[in-house]
Amino acid sequence: MDLDEREVFRAILSREGQELSPLTEPTDSQAGAFGARQSRLRSLLEERRLSFLLVTKPANLFYLTNFRGSAGVGVFGADQNVLWVDPRYTLQARESAQGVEVREEKGRLLKAAMRWLKRQRAPIVGYEHTVLTCAALQELQEGSSGRVRLKPASGLVEELRAVKDPGEAARIREAGHLIAAVFEEVRGVIKPSVPEVDVAAEIEYRMRRRGGDGPAFETIVASGARAALPHARPSAKRLERNELVIIDLGVILGGYAADMTRTLFLGRPNRRIRDLYEAVRESQEQGVAALHDGVRASQVDAAARRALTRWRLARYFTHSTGHGVGLEIHEAPRVARGEKTRLRSGSVITIEPGVYIEGLGGVRIEDTLLVNHGTPEVLTPAPKDAWVIS
Amino acid sequence: MDLDEREVFRAILSREGQELSPLTEPTDSQAGAFGARQSRLRSLLEERRLSFLLVTKPANLFYLTNFRGSAGVGVFGADQNVLWVDPRYTLQARESAQGVEVREEKGRLLKAAMRWLKRQRAPIVGYEHTVLTCAALQELQEGSSGRVRLKPASGLVEELRAVKDPGEAARIREAGHLIAAVFEEVRGVIKPSVPEVDVAAEIEYRMRRRGGDGPAFETIVASGARAALPHARPSAKRLERNELVIIDLGVILGGYAADMTRTLFLGRPNRRIRDLYEAVRESQEQGVAALHDGVRASQVDAAARRALTRWRLARYFTHSTGHGVGLEIHEAPRVARGEKTRLRSGSVITIEPGVYIEGLGGVRIEDTLLVNHGTPEVLTPAPKDAWVIS
Repeated sequence: MDLDEREVFRAILSREGQELSPLTEPTDSQAGAFGARQSRLRSLLEERRLSFLLVTKPANLFYLTNFRGSAGVGVFGADQNVLWVDPRYTLQARESAQGVEVREEKGRLLKAAMRWLKRQRAPIVGYEHTVLTCAALQELQEGSSGRVRLKPASGLVEELRAVKDPGEAARIREAGHLIAAVFEEVRGVIKPSVPEVDVAAEIEYRMRRRGGDGPAFETIVASGARAALPHARPSAKRLERNELVIIDLGVILGGYAADMTRTLFLGRPNRRIRDLYEAVRESQEQGVAALHDGVRASQVDAAARRALTRWRLARYFTHSTGHGVGLEIHEAPRVARGEKTRLRSGSVITIEPGVYIEGLGGVRIEDTLLVNHGTPEVLTPAPKDAWVIS
Repeated sequence: MDLDEREVFRAILSREGQELSPLTEPTDSQAGAFGARQSRLRSLLEERRLSFLLVTKPANLFYLTNFRGSAGVGVFGADQNVLWVDPRYTLQARESAQGVEVREEKGRLLKAAMRWLKRQRAPIVGYEHTVLTCAALQELQEGSSGRVRLKPASGLVEELRAVKDPGEAARIREAGHLIAAVFEEVRGVIKPSVPEVDVAAEIEYRMRRRGGDGPAFETIVASGARAALPHARPSAKRLERNELVIIDLGVILGGYAADMTRTLFLGRPNRRIRDLYEAVRESQEQGVAALHDGVRASQVDAAARRALTRWRLARYFTHSTGHGVGLEIHEAPRVARGEKTRLRSGSVITIEPGVYIEGLGGVRIEDTLLVNHGTPEVLTPAPKDAWVIS
């Protein structure tokens, strides 16, 4: 449906609306978490000599304030944080948002933010230049009458988000356990003659039934020769005996994602298939074993690749080893060649080596992991040893 | 998974990839349709005195070329159309894209397009300023070395898309019939004690099983007092006797969306509920009756509102009457107050009046319709008279 923001009947946005997203009601400790995030952002603003950061990306607004609407404009500064929302979201924002003054705006949110910024003293305002459209920037510039200096400043909140606090880790853990449970449940329907798309539908159905907000991406079910396509969308192709089946599933739960891949074989695998599977499992284990606070992302990538080199399969591993997971299914830090970033305790990443052989198929094994000082925690605890379905 | 574009093993993107989206293989008549769209775009470019339009929005690229990847940069001009894609998409683009020269680019697509544009004679290039980010525009400006004039020009392709050709109407019809069938199927599970979220999961599951690409938006199932929230997300709340239940569902099929809402009552409705339902049904019928080639969108909106005024319910109709539907679930034309645009034969829009009464609930009835010279065609043919479930 298409709500005209100006026409919205405010009364219907009653307390009932809070039912919609129970997980956005903060506990005391979570309220503390938002304060801590805003305080870390203030330090970054000081470093960059910015008076304010203007935030429009919904994931960043949710991270900083707990407000989970699809539209809003936030301004974060040394002493003041303000969030402008349209009347659809006023009540939700007033009840959920932490550490910001919520202002309802019936007109353009960006214009309202700019009117406010113009009243500050010679502000230098960072904006998310890889998010904001040209039209939006022009609107800001026109509104500023030259009294506000605008500076491109994407990535500040993403930098904070790369290390999770315990509340975030708990939510991703819950999402990860959900997909592990769904995968176990759905193994029963994975057999010859079932179309790929039906397996995908079953998985997404069970995610919803278990309380997931929805799949984090279109579930991948790729069988036989199609398993050699890392980006395969589920098709009407039916599973067959003696085929590899790659299943890559992700869920969003309370706003946070988790991501997992398992590969199955329908029948009695020959030596070559067993070797492929064993090689990828070893590669994944080596990637995980290399993962600890302070390691460079490139070193984790290299550990996973080295294992495949021993099996002479490294050239079939055609993508990077992993990526950060959180409010977005792909976020910082990347785990790939040349990524010098050091991973930190509290980062959540995937380790997902794969080999893809044209005509034969592919094997990929992926977990979402929480980086620790010692052994990382597997947030998607589904077994990898029951991969043969006979 | 996170594919490093540079590392992608091209060989695995074999012909198998074409299985992924069978509907993107054009028939002869569709190939003609893409030519016609490009030719209509050329006329708009001439009117606006643009040498080229630079297109990055995926829905617009799909519309103009039949290329359905998630990333690509197209340049459309008087004699030449070029599409840059990264190696993930080279094969798919070469096989599906119509009327453009496909160029593979391992580096930044925008930079490649700008290098090409610089070799043209003093080109004036329109860009989608409500889509392109500030960072992307800067990249273009830096690459242009002042030899290419860039002008904001969003909305040209959207203007073309507001009137569908017969191939597009056929796809939306197929999507609309799919959701009507799913709704009929799922009526059996709509009964007291079932959680809203389970009804939503059933609906989305059946859409997938019938070949849908996925839901066009998060399915709305809002019961009891929650039915007074036009934007309600399905919750764990269980359906109860003597409640109104609003079900708003949309599917994407072959890239095209359709959208439908029905309201049900679980039990024996009293006079007030019957009146509410009758009023909204009448309002929806009056909106549809006003719909024909040449009518102003505002007149259709007014017709739907007038019917509710007769029932003294107009003040509870808090949103606009409808919106265009096609490659996006919300696109031009809007059907709302003050919208002077004339609707044209071939436009596909929704008519979806609703009344929302705090504490009591709400009724909304919505169809997707194809505008004709005479009576519009209902593309979501599910009955509205079996709304009482006893």
